[in-house]
Amino acid sequence: MKITLIGSGNLATNIGVALKNAGHQIVQVYSRRLLNAVSLASRLEAKAVNQFSEINGDADVYILSLKDSVLQEVIAAVCKNKSDKIFLHTAGSVPMALFKGSAVRYGVLYPMQTFSKERVVDFRSLPCFIEACDNTVLEKIKTLALSISTKVYTLSSADRKYLHLAAVFACNFVNHCYEISSELLAAHSVPFDVLLPLIDETAHKVHELSPAHAQTGPAVRYDENVMEKHKMLLAASPLWQNIYELMSKSIHQTAIINNNKRI
Amino acid sequence: MKITLIGSGNLATNIGVALKNAGHQIVQVYSRRLLNAVSLASRLEAKAVNQFSEINGDADVYILSLKDSVLQEVIAAVCKNKSDKIFLHTAGSVPMALFKGSAVRYGVLYPMQTFSKERVVDFRSLPCFIEACDNTVLEKIKTLALSISTKVYTLSSADRKYLHLAAVFACNFVNHCYEISSELLAAHSVPFDVLLPLIDETAHKVHELSPAHAQTGPAVRYDENVMEKHKMLLAASPLWQNIYELMSKSIHQTAIINNNKRI
Repeated sequence: MKITLIGSGNLATNIGVALKNAGHQIVQVYSRRLLNAVSLASRLEAKAVNQFSEINGDADVYILSLKDSVLQEVIAAVCKNKSDKIFLHTAGSVPMALFKGSAVRYGVLYPMQTFSKERVVDFRSLPCFIEACDNTVLEKIKTLALSISTKVYTLSSADRKYLHLAAVFACNFVNHCYEISSELLAAHSVPFDVLLPLIDETAHKVHELSPAHAQTGPAVRYDENVMEKHKMLLAASPLWQNIYELMSKSIHQTAIINNNKRI
Repeated sequence: MKITLIGSGNLATNIGVALKNAGHQIVQVYSRRLLNAVSLASRLEAKAVNQFSEINGDADVYILSLKDSVLQEVIAAVCKNKSDKIFLHTAGSVPMALFKGSAVRYGVLYPMQTFSKERVVDFRSLPCFIEACDNTVLEKIKTLALSISTKVYTLSSADRKYLHLAAVFACNFVNHCYEISSELLAAHSVPFDVLLPLIDETAHKVHELSPAHAQTGPAVRYDENVMEKHKMLLAASPLWQNIYELMSKSIHQTAIINNNKRI
């Protein structure tokens, strides 16, 4: 297929590379900042543009990967006079209905992953969640999605927003826990590297055990003595102290609920 | 060496298996509950006991792996009349000084990992943090630690408690984030498995990028629109809503501090 990318951020970069590797032709890359558009377009052998009016009608599919907050106005500008084209956004938290009134053939392709420009992610095993305005468009999007990933699921906007929320916990908040650990270690001259085996095992574990079953540590044992000492160590950072308290409380409460379920 | 294990929980099980595989002889396994002692002792070809008075003097090293809150009283009971033996505890959060007055030769061997009985962990690449009452005992503990792990570090009690706190964030709180995700998905009939590629990539990423650099998502972009919607989705669970709010705030604040550092 011929594809034009609207956006040049982490997700646009990764999906662009995956699509090109799958044999699709990237026609144009749009970014508000020309430098960013040029940088990605050159990687994808596409043409860079930084004006909506320069986005031509040569592509079959237009993929919008932008900050959620600007998506609405960009859709209105980009979809104009291209009623025979397919428009997709890639946002977990944005309903498909955002296209209504602006496009005729539209849908969503949400690849659930954490993307950084510095790391090219293997799309093959990455779950992609798709949705479309009708079955004909859904088949087109499915074909496109299956060309880059082996795990393609159809999911409604209503369910996808919970999936996106779950991803924020499993990725963004997890990474922030790593970050807090890293800062605590740095303050005591311990290199972050020593945590990597623990981080890896914690991730591997939930391939075999449920997170509820995998839980260890003072909160699930409800070792108040240790938890009190930990909170004191965090005295200089009331926000982290607060996070410690709420996470421990939630671990403990969830364990009680799970135990009751088992009984 | 000849080793007796005091405790039969997740850590005792894993360190016992590692020590046996490294060629050490496990003499006895003590647990308050005889059934637990028998279960682990049979795995390690050791003798099971459930009374302190039954712990004999045949071992060179006695390793205490118990809930932090009971460690003090067990130390007093176990170390009595064995002044030529070495006593170790394996707790991250407990200072070595707990042995003072009860034992003559003592130290700490803290293997930083999340242990479950169902999963035998590879000790070879697992960081072990050691400490001892004097240099002679330190050398003995180092020899023992190096027989099961290639990554042995000497660390004081004062620094180890921060390491333990960091491990709670990087493991227990991370796992709880997985658990919250899992519950959110289950409520919308999405299997937890779809999160595994995201969980794995989030862990792999910090092998190459710092957590600060690896961060993505609405909080670091400060996308208030998405964050408000997410908080509404969590309305049924005020505790998780609160965690969402504090984690997002902390991600945002840390990003500002990091940006200022760069400038």
